[in-house]
Amino acid sequence: MSQKTQEPVVNKLTELSTQDAKWITLKKIDYTDQTGKDRTWEVATRKTRGKAGVDAVAIGNVLLHPSKPPSTLLVIQYRPPLDAYTVEWPAGLIDADETAEQAAVREFKEETGYDCKLVSMSPIQSADPGMSDANMKMAMVEVQLGENDPEPEQRLEDGEHIERVVVPLAEFYDRLVEYSKKDRFIVAAKLFHFAHGMHFAQTQKYM
Amino acid sequence: MSQKTQEPVVNKLTELSTQDAKWITLKKIDYTDQTGKDRTWEVATRKTRGKAGVDAVAIGNVLLHPSKPPSTLLVIQYRPPLDAYTVEWPAGLIDADETAEQAAVREFKEETGYDCKLVSMSPIQSADPGMSDANMKMAMVEVQLGENDPEPEQRLEDGEHIERVVVPLAEFYDRLVEYSKKDRFIVAAKLFHFAHGMHFAQTQKYM
Repeated sequence: MSQKTQEPVVNKLTELSTQDAKWITLKKIDYTDQTGKDRTWEVATRKTRGKAGVDAVAIGNVLLHPSKPPSTLLVIQYRPPLDAYTVEWPAGLIDADETAEQAAVREFKEETGYDCKLVSMSPIQSADPGMSDANMKMAMVEVQLGENDPEPEQRLEDGEHIERVVVPLAEFYDRLVEYSKKDRFIVAAKLFHFAHGMHFAQTQKYM
Repeated sequence: MSQKTQEPVVNKLTELSTQDAKWITLKKIDYTDQTGKDRTWEVATRKTRGKAGVDAVAIGNVLLHPSKPPSTLLVIQYRPPLDAYTVEWPAGLIDADETAEQAAVREFKEETGYDCKLVSMSPIQSADPGMSDANMKMAMVEVQLGENDPEPEQRLEDGEHIERVVVPLAEFYDRLVEYSKKDRFIVAAKLFHFAHGMHFAQTQKYM
């Protein structure tokens, strides 16, 4: 991990014209609804979608160690859109010539340093369907560790500063609730929902 | 539910300038990173955030019936950004003068017709932290039904066409996987992650 010498700080927030935007843009949708009425909708869209037809992949993961409890590896990074540190599973955009499966293994290696075994890949999901057309798939991977394996080096791109945190699965939900209480931290909704679903299944009184 | 007479259709997709956008816009963030280097980031942002400081609330829910299995109510609606029907929990933007709790009860009544009891409210979560500053909270609510209660009327706004589907909790994950296979259907990531988390907790072999 590169040297962290200071807290990140936002210096300026300016209107960005769609002509000047490189990564995202706005579109207006003219559509006809179910009743035959013409309507419009505003959408934010990424400019980077490749052949996979999917913007991004998130990598749910289980770390298995001979003498430690089964855990999951989370990444914490400063996210300028929120001016906060987000807690997420490793994730990244799928390159133009990649499959979601290839991107999952590549991004996991880059952000965590670990080689992983792909266990499953989810269907396409819409990231935030009222506001954007962004979509994603979720991989689930396993990492089998040896008793005394050292923590591997990350392979971060220029500008990436990603902290790794290993959380026992048994503490997953509680740890996310704790992170949410910390100043300048926010848990990503997809990660929180997964852990919330686990917690719900383990504690609910309905079924 | 209003009369559905035809499949919705997108007629035109045009560049939308930030001046003309009413609901969302783009911003450029100039920031200084952890190493002291000046960088920029592009972000999509909503123009509608009110006093709650939170854009939206999603409403996880359990329907309890004397003689039917515990279930959850999902909503299916055409989402122009995806030109597809999304499967989601009821959700909506928080009005300028509302709390997240008030918005949850109001939106649930509007979209489903049911009065509900608020069980819990999550911390703030970031909806899609690489692309936008959109954030949300997740309410969990209960609805206690009588044996022969009729399905209540929805109170939809003009232009809203929302279909309700009741899914037994025991079939939650499998039904979402099925929806994902249907033509022109996509499951929202937050909903899928919650159900995936439940499924993971119920089927995993790690713990």
